[in-house]
Amino acid sequence: MESGRLGGSGPAEPGPRLRGLRGTDQAVWASSLSEAEAGAGCFALAVAAVLPAGGSGERMGVPTPKQFCPILERPLISYTLQALERVCWIKDIVVAVTGENMEAMKGIIQRYQHKRISLVEAGVTRHRSIFNGLKALAEDQPNSRLSKPEVVIIHDAVRPFVEEDVLLKVVTAAQEYGASGAIRPLVSTVISPSTEGYLEHSLERARHRASEMPQAFLFDVIYEAYRQCSDHDLEFGTECLHLALKYCHIKAKLVEGSPDLWKVTYKRDLYAAESIIKERISQQICVVMDTKDEHVGCRLEETLKNELNHMKKVTSGRDLQQIILEQCYSFVCVNVMTSDFEETHKLLNMLEESNISILYPVVVISVHFLDYKSVPFGQKMENLMHIREFAKEMKKRNILLYGLLIYYPQDEQKLKESLKQGATIIAALIKERNSGLIGQLLVA
Amino acid sequence: MESGRLGGSGPAEPGPRLRGLRGTDQAVWASSLSEAEAGAGCFALAVAAVLPAGGSGERMGVPTPKQFCPILERPLISYTLQALERVCWIKDIVVAVTGENMEAMKGIIQRYQHKRISLVEAGVTRHRSIFNGLKALAEDQPNSRLSKPEVVIIHDAVRPFVEEDVLLKVVTAAQEYGASGAIRPLVSTVISPSTEGYLEHSLERARHRASEMPQAFLFDVIYEAYRQCSDHDLEFGTECLHLALKYCHIKAKLVEGSPDLWKVTYKRDLYAAESIIKERISQQICVVMDTKDEHVGCRLEETLKNELNHMKKVTSGRDLQQIILEQCYSFVCVNVMTSDFEETHKLLNMLEESNISILYPVVVISVHFLDYKSVPFGQKMENLMHIREFAKEMKKRNILLYGLLIYYPQDEQKLKESLKQGATIIAALIKERNSGLIGQLLVA
Repeated sequence: MESGRLGGSGPAEPGPRLRGLRGTDQAVWASSLSEAEAGAGCFALAVAAVLPAGGSGERMGVPTPKQFCPILERPLISYTLQALERVCWIKDIVVAVTGENMEAMKGIIQRYQHKRISLVEAGVTRHRSIFNGLKALAEDQPNSRLSKPEVVIIHDAVRPFVEEDVLLKVVTAAQEYGASGAIRPLVSTVISPSTEGYLEHSLERARHRASEMPQAFLFDVIYEAYRQCSDHDLEFGTECLHLALKYCHIKAKLVEGSPDLWKVTYKRDLYAAESIIKERISQQICVVMDTKDEHVGCRLEETLKNELNHMKKVTSGRDLQQIILEQCYSFVCVNVMTSDFEETHKLLNMLEESNISILYPVVVISVHFLDYKSVPFGQKMENLMHIREFAKEMKKRNILLYGLLIYYPQDEQKLKESLKQGATIIAALIKERNSGLIGQLLVA
Repeated sequence: MESGRLGGSGPAEPGPRLRGLRGTDQAVWASSLSEAEAGAGCFALAVAAVLPAGGSGERMGVPTPKQFCPILERPLISYTLQALERVCWIKDIVVAVTGENMEAMKGIIQRYQHKRISLVEAGVTRHRSIFNGLKALAEDQPNSRLSKPEVVIIHDAVRPFVEEDVLLKVVTAAQEYGASGAIRPLVSTVISPSTEGYLEHSLERARHRASEMPQAFLFDVIYEAYRQCSDHDLEFGTECLHLALKYCHIKAKLVEGSPDLWKVTYKRDLYAAESIIKERISQQICVVMDTKDEHVGCRLEETLKNELNHMKKVTSGRDLQQIILEQCYSFVCVNVMTSDFEETHKLLNMLEESNISILYPVVVISVHFLDYKSVPFGQKMENLMHIREFAKEMKKRNILLYGLLIYYPQDEQKLKESLKQGATIIAALIKERNSGLIGQLLVA
């Protein structure tokens, strides 16, 4: 991959350091942003990003502006910030939010431990918000610890699935050509209606493209374009590439983007985003067991691999710290020989310490086996019922705990069926991540 | 609403009557389509619809063509057919499918009891498929029991959420102006790249629109346009409005459509469609109880109303037949005084007879109450365990059965909490409709 050239992106270190800053003509507020932390060893080019996030979201048909709509209880904009801060060579991320959302935005940055973020006040239009972000990056801002980048990325707060490779492509192209933007094929034919609402002509679909985000510019080019920009353009325009062309005569280099670049515009897009995020964090399942429990634990692990092989990566939790570091969000914890919840407790303690559930809800399924010879079903269920209170506690940490009791008959065929049903239930719980069912004891 | 003028659309009668027909130059196959059944009392104008469904779905990134991708286990195209056949004044629906999908399509029509559908063989391009559909409707087809309509609607198989009002608008406009199509505002700016991939110019977004479906035409206009159409247009074009303009000089009247008209194009759109459909069929919850159980049943109903009031309509199942007719897909069935599953059995029998689960999975939550004084918890759980086998049987009929055991303590505050948690669990089960959890006994 091209990204090798610049050094890969790694997970950012935990723990934000917050500082308050204020510029002259607009509010500037910044979370941690030491240069050493941000760019070291990554990328010689100075790159920053500007994210206009002042929109009202009227197309969504909901009162909350779409960038603040929750997905798995976390605001959409936090996913977009996460996507940008994963890229270690983006040194600063300037977000433009309206005054009324400023405190909420600071809360989001703090709660989800975002880094390298500065806040500026949004303007009344998208272009004015971007211009405010660029001003904060320009050298002539007193009291700002932001420094002028060579290249600036402009992205939307409502495009959370942007990948490093397309960011790299637009930045590289901007460095060479002055401006660059991602494009996608048109989904619908574009037509130009007459003022009376009749078809005048339709555009040849193959010769046109949708202009998407991210876009990137040499900072001096786009800043100059905004400085020269007419009030009319600042009020009614939306397209940065157009400003670079009109005011600086820069023909942007266009880069084919992936379908992931789509913009969350309507309510249905929120649904789609939630499903995509759920799918992503459910790809890997880690099966955790004590060595004493390995026989039955391995049988379950094997069944999970067979039943879910087309969709899931199932790993043994032998090096849990490593698995947590690799950002696994779905755990199956086998308790057999040990007392009822011993393994589950151990796992939950590790998860709590790791802070992994800050960004996504983590599913933990506490698996128990029922051997009729030793304890009757009703008795076993009663023994396990305190999972309910326990699950309520864990929910406060964004950990969704469920119980699963698997019959363990002598008959091999029946055992296989139990394990298979157990796998189905595990898959359902992991896929849905529904907090309404936490603390339930399911039976396979 | 305008639809009053033409008579509303009602649910189609059950029971398809299948007949095989074959035209001269393409296969024509039709499900029931007696004129009396289709148009009587609805609409004087003769209207038919053509649905090209020969696409390969390459943008979806999945092997199944997108119109056949399952949503809640039913193929997408079936939802679109359902949307069209709800409109009683559409007399015939002609679907163009490839030879290899012909048998699968017949199976879909039979299984989901679609009506007024005729099948023709798709061409290699969208325009050729539509042309084949129009030929089947033209009068000169021997052996066809289709008759030439005055107005023909052209729609996409992958736009399942089309509503009667927009169909009516395009049909009315087509009757007056010869051609009409639904349009939507552009989501992205449209640009025209140079052959080297540079921005040449961007279009003013406000002056352009996306051309969507449905479109409608005077049959003679669009049929003539296709007959005169060049091979180049048939191969590379996609836009019917363009053909009417180019070959018949008809400037289509453009009609603003709703956001619902969007086309399922990418995998994320399938996710969105599934969420929208789940949301729609979860709007109404019916609480069913015997008169003897009314005290506790009404407490639960009241709690559901309070907890879910912003999203759900909760109704009492006093006239179950009527509620089933109104297409309610979510039932909460209270069993208290009666023996364990008596009410649930009665409800399931009615649901089975009604055939309501043919189109959507129906959720039934069998609610039981636990009074510690009479039966201990473990005992009660064991008593209710045969819901598991029962649920497996019901799944074959597309009915998803779950059990819910609610603590019923003397303490009023604790009872309130139990009922509230019961409502949360009910909401979760209805929202997700996950077949992996059927037969489970949840505890509130």
